[in-house]
Amino acid sequence: MKNKLYFKTTLDERTTRAYETIKEEQTTIGYYSLPEQNIQPILDYCNTISKEIQSIAVIGIGGSSLGAKAVYGFLRSVEKPLRKLYFFESTDPINIKNLLDTIDIEKTHFLVISKSGTTVETFAIYKYIFSKQDNPNAYTFITDPNSDLEKYAKTIDADILHLPDNVGGRFSVLSVVGLVPLALCGIDVQALLDGANRIKKSFFEHGYLQDILLQKSLFYAKHHAKYHINCLFAYSESLKYFTEWYVQLWGESLGKKQRHSAFHVGLTPIGLIGPKDQHSFLQLIMEGTRDKSVTFIQIEDFQKKIKIPSTPLPHLESLDTLNDRYFSDLITMQCNSVIEALLEEGDIPLDRITIPQISAENIGALIFYYELLTSLVGELIDVNTYNQPGVEAAKVILKKKLDAQQ
Amino acid sequence: MKNKLYFKTTLDERTTRAYETIKEEQTTIGYYSLPEQNIQPILDYCNTISKEIQSIAVIGIGGSSLGAKAVYGFLRSVEKPLRKLYFFESTDPINIKNLLDTIDIEKTHFLVISKSGTTVETFAIYKYIFSKQDNPNAYTFITDPNSDLEKYAKTIDADILHLPDNVGGRFSVLSVVGLVPLALCGIDVQALLDGANRIKKSFFEHGYLQDILLQKSLFYAKHHAKYHINCLFAYSESLKYFTEWYVQLWGESLGKKQRHSAFHVGLTPIGLIGPKDQHSFLQLIMEGTRDKSVTFIQIEDFQKKIKIPSTPLPHLESLDTLNDRYFSDLITMQCNSVIEALLEEGDIPLDRITIPQISAENIGALIFYYELLTSLVGELIDVNTYNQPGVEAAKVILKKKLDAQQ
Repeated sequence: MKNKLYFKTTLDERTTRAYETIKEEQTTIGYYSLPEQNIQPILDYCNTISKEIQSIAVIGIGGSSLGAKAVYGFLRSVEKPLRKLYFFESTDPINIKNLLDTIDIEKTHFLVISKSGTTVETFAIYKYIFSKQDNPNAYTFITDPNSDLEKYAKTIDADILHLPDNVGGRFSVLSVVGLVPLALCGIDVQALLDGANRIKKSFFEHGYLQDILLQKSLFYAKHHAKYHINCLFAYSESLKYFTEWYVQLWGESLGKKQRHSAFHVGLTPIGLIGPKDQHSFLQLIMEGTRDKSVTFIQIEDFQKKIKIPSTPLPHLESLDTLNDRYFSDLITMQCNSVIEALLEEGDIPLDRITIPQISAENIGALIFYYELLTSLVGELIDVNTYNQPGVEAAKVILKKKLDAQQ
Repeated sequence: MKNKLYFKTTLDERTTRAYETIKEEQTTIGYYSLPEQNIQPILDYCNTISKEIQSIAVIGIGGSSLGAKAVYGFLRSVEKPLRKLYFFESTDPINIKNLLDTIDIEKTHFLVISKSGTTVETFAIYKYIFSKQDNPNAYTFITDPNSDLEKYAKTIDADILHLPDNVGGRFSVLSVVGLVPLALCGIDVQALLDGANRIKKSFFEHGYLQDILLQKSLFYAKHHAKYHINCLFAYSESLKYFTEWYVQLWGESLGKKQRHSAFHVGLTPIGLIGPKDQHSFLQLIMEGTRDKSVTFIQIEDFQKKIKIPSTPLPHLESLDTLNDRYFSDLITMQCNSVIEALLEEGDIPLDRITIPQISAENIGALIFYYELLTSLVGELIDVNTYNQPGVEAAKVILKKKLDAQQ
């Protein structure tokens, strides 16, 4: 993975402090140590699931689903998974019905994922599905030790897996939350962790990425009032769900009240897919308000090589310069053209991430890169990166409504 | 369709002027008259397509695909379509290969849609697919009269349909661009137009929506510097692609240089789906920078009624208030709870659109509502709503690259 910044900033005592904080945080924030975990217990557990099972269905929402979806969506594009992975993550009745019509419930293993064990959506959907499939062996519960969900799972004698300590939902993809569904679909989760570990080492052992990540986070924090929208423009359909994972990670971690002021701050994340969104969002970046930074992601080697044929098409000769080109070269040229056009404007901060190809190792690296970047930016804009107090108010109101309408 | 605004603004001479401009624009901007068109020629044309054809594949990008996708995605959730609809809209080789593996090419009719006829992506994909299926009867070309694409289509004796005058790509869903693929999938396109016409009449004949649309557009324009991000938070998975259509419409129409100044202006659109994004983006709206307005969309009657069972689950009794509730009631309560929580903050401009149920008429109404709103806001922030000069620079650079590497 390479990362080229097209903007400059000088590291100063703020980045030194932030780096020290992040280093110390490793003892209290759980996600940093996930890349080095021993995954043998997870693999052993996955081997206990019957070969008859064709589908895995995650019942979970937000941090319990977005990470596995990002990795699965990325890798499935080039390799047929061992089992199909589905996500029940909405209380929309049409969505629940349609998903249930898609799967063969007798050949599906359900992973009920809720950190607290009392997520309304997860609970409601589980209860509905349990009325259709009441065999406890069809379920595994992934939750915090001693949660009510664990206590319940014990009463039906279902399998239980625990989340590691101090790993928040949106930072949990490299824990059991992501690894179990992915391993069950035949994905090489060790490679995923190896990729993450590569980034971790590069950052903490003064490798190439340390300087890049510090510069980028300082730039975002310093210019936060001006460039408060961050676009992630990925040139591959396979990264669609990765951008959704990024939106949660970035938005929920950085949209906060400051710790030492009454300011509301935040960097607004937007996921884009190229070249499609050149025909949608690009106009706004190019000519709209100068409030956006853009990170491009390119894939160097698309494993599926197909060529634009050279058959002559009368009256369309002006496009013959496309003849005999690989689509992969075309998409790369499209991305480069957009970068050049935006650079010419001179006042839109850009950077480019290049990943060699679609693999578990590379998506693991990308995930850890974004987790580190989020932690750094959070520290530099003075927020608590790891909580989400803003979602509580609506939960309290919902509870009151539910209680009132008994 | 109902629309309740939770903010107030007083109409003034600016809205009077904008309203007059929009009224006059009807003679020059084509989309306003689409709701009243005679669709018999489209239906007749669709009847010429063989009953053997099981899939329709649109080869088109941006305005040529997003509208049909929005309507199809919405309606397919409750009704099985006559034929399946696919979209080739990326030069990502993996995406093209995987899509081709999904369809039966011999039972697919391809709609090649490009206004100018020289869209690079559309052309490259068409050329590749034509090398796999060279029967001209498998294609219909939808393009401007006398475009190079039309001239080419004539040489292979394929069917050609014309776009109406002065209808830009992102305003074209109610023209042949959207109606042909949708009608071929058995969707009641007359109902779609009727829904749009209802909104048109309400606006131009001093109905209920005139005041609402003028107030809303004036508020967005007046407070543009503060609330420059507009979130569309739709509480139904079926509206996912509608939010993508909205992002293009809003972003590409309103992200511009002003006509009478050197200012870069724009309102940044963000599509969200509830309740899922309560677990992702809500934190940022609730506690982040106060730069966002939010429009909620609720569906009153979800046609699929399913209930949360009342089976007792030991240790999870705290959630028993959910028992025996319809999921549709739960999702509505969730949305209402979020609205109340945000209203309590007092400084986040909100409104709520309610649509009675999932139907062609209702999505037609929603589309026209957003088109009118976009035209009004564009007028009030002094941009040319209907062009997109900002996407040209990257096209010129791409052309140079292609020419250089001959």
